[in-house]
Amino acid sequence: MTEKIRVGIVGYGNLGRGVENSIAQQPDMELAGVFSRRDPESVETLFVATAVFGLESIHDFNDRIDVLVLCGGSKEDLPVQTPELAANFTLVDSFDTHAKIPEHFAAVDASAKAGNTTAIISTGWDPGLFSLNRLFGEAIIPTGETYTFWGRGLSQGHSDALRRIPGVAGAVQYTIPSEEAIDRVRAGERPELTTREKHTRECYVVLEDGADADSVREAIVTMPDYFEPYDTTVNFISADELARDHSGMPHGGFVIRSGESSDGVAQTIEYQLSLESNPEFTSSVLVAYARAAARLTASGEHGAKTPFDIAPGLLSPKSPEQLRAELL
Amino acid sequence: MTEKIRVGIVGYGNLGRGVENSIAQQPDMELAGVFSRRDPESVETLFVATAVFGLESIHDFNDRIDVLVLCGGSKEDLPVQTPELAANFTLVDSFDTHAKIPEHFAAVDASAKAGNTTAIISTGWDPGLFSLNRLFGEAIIPTGETYTFWGRGLSQGHSDALRRIPGVAGAVQYTIPSEEAIDRVRAGERPELTTREKHTRECYVVLEDGADADSVREAIVTMPDYFEPYDTTVNFISADELARDHSGMPHGGFVIRSGESSDGVAQTIEYQLSLESNPEFTSSVLVAYARAAARLTASGEHGAKTPFDIAPGLLSPKSPEQLRAELL
Repeated sequence: MTEKIRVGIVGYGNLGRGVENSIAQQPDMELAGVFSRRDPESVETLFVATAVFGLESIHDFNDRIDVLVLCGGSKEDLPVQTPELAANFTLVDSFDTHAKIPEHFAAVDASAKAGNTTAIISTGWDPGLFSLNRLFGEAIIPTGETYTFWGRGLSQGHSDALRRIPGVAGAVQYTIPSEEAIDRVRAGERPELTTREKHTRECYVVLEDGADADSVREAIVTMPDYFEPYDTTVNFISADELARDHSGMPHGGFVIRSGESSDGVAQTIEYQLSLESNPEFTSSVLVAYARAAARLTASGEHGAKTPFDIAPGLLSPKSPEQLRAELL
Repeated sequence: MTEKIRVGIVGYGNLGRGVENSIAQQPDMELAGVFSRRDPESVETLFVATAVFGLESIHDFNDRIDVLVLCGGSKEDLPVQTPELAANFTLVDSFDTHAKIPEHFAAVDASAKAGNTTAIISTGWDPGLFSLNRLFGEAIIPTGETYTFWGRGLSQGHSDALRRIPGVAGAVQYTIPSEEAIDRVRAGERPELTTREKHTRECYVVLEDGADADSVREAIVTMPDYFEPYDTTVNFISADELARDHSGMPHGGFVIRSGESSDGVAQTIEYQLSLESNPEFTSSVLVAYARAAARLTASGEHGAKTPFDIAPGLLSPKSPEQLRAELL
């Protein structure tokens, strides 16, 4: 491909901004524009050169965009947008409601096949890179167990739960993978572990003036489902500290395959992500899969795909010859 | 595929034995036989049911084998065998002479295209799984560095070098990744590191009767190329300890991508293998790629391929629907 891949961004929150940032680092891509439901005039982009359009005008761009990167949420946006837009555009999304992936895939597949487009769904890191490592692990070492640990990472849902407690002025919550559980897995014990046993929760809380620390702590650690079942620590900090030390969106985790290739011969595969910005990393994965989607549609491979269907070489701007010479 | 994939093993050393062992664990594969240059009567297989044939008779099996797994060495065997056999058989190999991969690929590709077969070369873990992680790392985080560390692992070449030293009755050498170097990479320093700076060498040596430990140690640590440039430790042990503690073939290593998705935002991807048996693990990877090769040839995708060209889903015995529901 000598011409650059023209990319459109649909939705402009943290993920959309991350895609804008990532495309600027790709030698073979250019940004065609951001499409937002908001008034385009009100959208402040990362780069001044980035054009913003109303989402309703996207069909004027059918011939000027090679691939769309959908940056909406999995709850409300993507179940509607991905099948709709796949009728006319090759695209990628990061749909991450694991239980609804088969349903989402079917809807997108029908639309993409009818429209002769290619739609790669559920890219990102989980689903996405973590899924690939779960697959490689069990395909290569069929006798064994696969463990997924999340964190250390900021959990938006749990942070919101903290902020609803009376007396809390601000808060963040980090999900921490249990060191003890990881050590047991790495040691080849193959323990049975629930999500609860694999993770602990760490809270950083700013109290409202006059709020009582002990009763706030008690309200947190006894909160059903969210904190009560977990080993939870609560740290009280100042508003300045919250702003200074806890405004990032770190995340990451581990996929570990622990098994045996024959009796008593242990084999361990471990994949780990340590991300200072969860949305920027997810965006970077979306952009690599956008490259693959553009190539697949150019070679006539239409319909819905997932990372399981994508040959890794398609993610790289390098030619197959270069990849074999430099990276194999 | 409802019929089992019929697999032939070419060459029966540690790798061939590992493939025999791995196929017995696959729900969708059966072993058609082992093909050896040795007298078939003299080959003792892992399972009594395994048939052994002379390699010269392999063309009698054209219609009874779906895929061959080539288990010969990269120096003498594969440069000849892979192109030759690809003319008539779909196959996989673990060709691992990095510098000669482009040449090997070209020879195999010509043969496989002429013969309408599919040949996946350079599977295994390096090249293979490590290569995939190098590719994913730079495709997703283009601004950064990729580090490959090997070990802790038994090095055959360095063990042989030890055994040639006068006064040495037996010996093994382990390549150890430098903890300090790994820590610097994990910390996001992105240091420039040579292979020498990334690894140390650990020797376990059995002395001949009357040999002088100090002069053997001196001969080891001053040996040019092999040990002199490295931080090398020498441990003297008994023949019993050597047999008891050092007869396995462990190996492994790390691929770490350390980069930034935007200025000052660090992202780290780490892939680690801890293998109690290097040949059994490599065999397991070969067998998973053999499944992919059989599927690709059935769908008419002929020619030479590498792991970069293989959609991960093809490695698993599970259907695409199952993979999406269970692993994505």
